[in-house]
Amino acid sequence: MTFSFEIEKEISNGLARVGTIKTAHGEIKTPAFVAVGTKATVKGLTPDQIKETGVQTIICNTYHLYLDPGAEQIKKLGGLHKMMNWSGPLMTDSGGFQVFSLGAAYGKGLSKILKKSDELLLSEQSDEEDKPRIAKIDPNGVMFRAHDDGSAHYFTPEKSINIQHNLGADIIFAFDECTSPHESLHYQKEALDRTHRWAKQSLGYHKLKNTGQALFGIVQGGRNEELRKESATFIGNLDFEGFGIGGSFEKEDMTNAVEWVNSILPKEKPRHLLGIGEPIDLFGAVEKGCDLFDCVNPTRIGRNGMVYTKNGRINLMNKEFRDDSTPLDDCKCYACKNFSRAYIAHLMHAKEILGATLISIHNIYFITHMVMQMRETLLSGDFLSYKKDFLKQYYH
Amino acid sequence: MTFSFEIEKEISNGLARVGTIKTAHGEIKTPAFVAVGTKATVKGLTPDQIKETGVQTIICNTYHLYLDPGAEQIKKLGGLHKMMNWSGPLMTDSGGFQVFSLGAAYGKGLSKILKKSDELLLSEQSDEEDKPRIAKIDPNGVMFRAHDDGSAHYFTPEKSINIQHNLGADIIFAFDECTSPHESLHYQKEALDRTHRWAKQSLGYHKLKNTGQALFGIVQGGRNEELRKESATFIGNLDFEGFGIGGSFEKEDMTNAVEWVNSILPKEKPRHLLGIGEPIDLFGAVEKGCDLFDCVNPTRIGRNGMVYTKNGRINLMNKEFRDDSTPLDDCKCYACKNFSRAYIAHLMHAKEILGATLISIHNIYFITHMVMQMRETLLSGDFLSYKKDFLKQYYH
Repeated sequence: MTFSFEIEKEISNGLARVGTIKTAHGEIKTPAFVAVGTKATVKGLTPDQIKETGVQTIICNTYHLYLDPGAEQIKKLGGLHKMMNWSGPLMTDSGGFQVFSLGAAYGKGLSKILKKSDELLLSEQSDEEDKPRIAKIDPNGVMFRAHDDGSAHYFTPEKSINIQHNLGADIIFAFDECTSPHESLHYQKEALDRTHRWAKQSLGYHKLKNTGQALFGIVQGGRNEELRKESATFIGNLDFEGFGIGGSFEKEDMTNAVEWVNSILPKEKPRHLLGIGEPIDLFGAVEKGCDLFDCVNPTRIGRNGMVYTKNGRINLMNKEFRDDSTPLDDCKCYACKNFSRAYIAHLMHAKEILGATLISIHNIYFITHMVMQMRETLLSGDFLSYKKDFLKQYYH
Repeated sequence: MTFSFEIEKEISNGLARVGTIKTAHGEIKTPAFVAVGTKATVKGLTPDQIKETGVQTIICNTYHLYLDPGAEQIKKLGGLHKMMNWSGPLMTDSGGFQVFSLGAAYGKGLSKILKKSDELLLSEQSDEEDKPRIAKIDPNGVMFRAHDDGSAHYFTPEKSINIQHNLGADIIFAFDECTSPHESLHYQKEALDRTHRWAKQSLGYHKLKNTGQALFGIVQGGRNEELRKESATFIGNLDFEGFGIGGSFEKEDMTNAVEWVNSILPKEKPRHLLGIGEPIDLFGAVEKGCDLFDCVNPTRIGRNGMVYTKNGRINLMNKEFRDDSTPLDDCKCYACKNFSRAYIAHLMHAKEILGATLISIHNIYFITHMVMQMRETLLSGDFLSYKKDFLKQYYH
């Protein structure tokens, strides 16, 4: 397997570090922001445009690609790298997050959660149909209905890993259950036991095959210190190549959870904080020893006209930007080098595709370069002053 | 004014020719396909991507840009070239076509056409409102309602030219009335008289200003030979820098109309066949002496999954393409060099922006290079055999 993680520098009085991940498709200089390519495309960008933002790696979505076009189909097309024409490192998530959120929430939203013997039933009544929509968790896996056509599917750890083998990304993730922070402690414990059992199964199945992919285990445990530490210990002791830190966090819980976990995880392996991407969270996560981050925000909010700038987010749909001849921000991305806020605002108002593309390019560039600058300042020793200055200007 | 047209080669026994238009923003090697950038963007493509298709020039839409963001606003932003970051030659149309079609057709579609003294009333009853929506033509101009908010506007030749001066394209067009081929001969004559009077007014107003832009006059006359010839004679005798050939054609009428007109227009000036772009029409138009063409089809049909190939159009939404690992066509465009039909079909089914962008890139490349090849074969003397082979394979 072509996978390694080398730490170039550790911050002596903390958890932060600078490193390099090596994969069969090239290096990832860490800490690094990972662009989200849900359905095998970073929404609105060509691979050339993605590369130009400075992004080193993309994470695609196992749940979505399993449903359409299908993992076997992608394998037939030569795998994810070839299909989407991305020659750099690629990741896929485990599908767990979507199975539990999108799958269970099919239709009009969850209406009740029932405990029934040792199986948990997430039942939801559709307004339009008599049939309840159900996502059903049992000790072996989860039955869910697809968000698009309501078709029934069953995911197990083995199935998730098998799908990810067919997709062929460089870094893949163990199947886990991502719980809401509002669940009871009782439920968190049950779910964590499942996640740990599934981690071992994911690893066991993965070891049987010889795909050359690096498998990351996922630490869960919600906002509970004891569970987080238990999970970091359990998952950290398994033979994974790296770790994901999962969970739907309340903002104030995140940095604590990351610190608890990263103080325990073996430091010689990389840590990916899943689904986190706002500036203040990224500074906190890097400081507490995370190496990788992914988040849909740069493209998702971008398509709605929200733009990251050094002085904070702006909503380009506001009238004041219609005659603003300055660039989106003081930055060297393709959008800022070539277009004014007024033009991009015009494109957004006219619902022109190019508007979403240009803002997405800028937003990804912004976050990617912010994290790159964290790396630079960790190396130069100026991280804390960079953090202070950046956050002061951004959240002024 | 930096504008010239030089003919490099004329076909001795016909009307076709090869030439070069020079503008302040560079050359256009003719015959040439002009990409449509309705709202100051070729839908889905960055300027870099447009350039990479081989497109030399873009035509933008006066009606749409007048309504949003406004011509004064574009002038303030440095003009159309600067705003949309296109450094090559640019054109704007006169707005006439949209005023008469979009403007008049506001709401649920035209319900009646009334002749009322010397003014023509296009009246339409909305199902949802009591107020009729009206586009009203009088000898001096046309009152119309915008397609988006129903606001009232009045266009005259002077106003159209003034807007185009503010937009600042290299080539602009006289204000004209584009009639339906289904109008009566009586109406065609009336409309043609208006178009001719408006052509003189457009030219007169344009000459007063010193903008350095080249003004093209537009020949109309529907499918009627006498009117077409009358129009070519009238417009051809005015001091325009080039000519547009307008009209909503029935397919079989087009080549005739073009031949009538181009046999009369002064041959030392370029001729732009407006809104035409399907392969068979382009071969016919080049053969009959047209130099420029624009058409929304490459991008419009592209966004619906229709792809030009050497073997004819294909609908990429068809199931068979979901596992087709070959490129869209045997071609050197960015989409064909890097992606399979199966991947682009996946993007289209998933409603991913990148799908529309890639097909649009391919379709523009296809049409642009087809016309480039016409130019090459006109120079080498192989035009007729290229035409025969191409059309045989395309319409097999």
